[in-house]
Amino acid sequence: MINLAAGQCVACRGGEPTLANDEVEDLLFHVIGWQVVDADKVKRIEKAFKFKNFAEAMEFTNKLAAIAEEQGHHPRIITEWGGVTVQWWTHVIQGLHRNDFIMAAKTDELFG
Amino acid sequence: MINLAAGQCVACRGGEPTLANDEVEDLLFHVIGWQVVDADKVKRIEKAFKFKNFAEAMEFTNKLAAIAEEQGHHPRIITEWGGVTVQWWTHVIQGLHRNDFIMAAKTDELFG
Repeated sequence: MINLAAGQCVACRGGEPTLANDEVEDLLFHVIGWQVVDADKVKRIEKAFKFKNFAEAMEFTNKLAAIAEEQGHHPRIITEWGGVTVQWWTHVIQGLHRNDFIMAAKTDELFG
Repeated sequence: MINLAAGQCVACRGGEPTLANDEVEDLLFHVIGWQVVDADKVKRIEKAFKFKNFAEAMEFTNKLAAIAEEQGHHPRIITEWGGVTVQWWTHVIQGLHRNDFIMAAKTDELFG
């Protein structure tokens, strides 16, 4: 397993290609439970996390927001009673970049 | 216009009917920009709010979470760079209750 969680997002200014399908498959192997979803024709990776109540879901949401700001890379966070669903993708290339898998691994690490 | 924002959620323990379509229509008139969406066969009301960046979206998410906890009624909050989408519905009756419109009005008031 690559330690993706230890990685740092690199600047992605657009113009770069999205990851090829086989690269996505390889990286998915290193972030357990994440799956590719298509939303508005853009590939994203998504995972749902369970919590005891709304307060704990919000606590996780805030911790995740802090690492997103730190890395300058922002997810879609769906927060509700008992759960948080996280989606990562790279807006500027409208698809998946290695950065998204680094952030997925960091998200898992945060969940602990 | 009824001042729904000044209302307080009443305890809803299930067994109560969901709002009838004409009641929903009437209440929608008092919360501008909210629309009914069907998600997993459950009627919800939803509205998207725009922000300048991720930090402002998170700030709104946290303020909304605080009033949700205060009223004991919790939305689905979808937070991303530049926007927050809020869905209200009443889990215990799997549909819409007057409480949801009170919370929609409070959400609008918060957005200011």
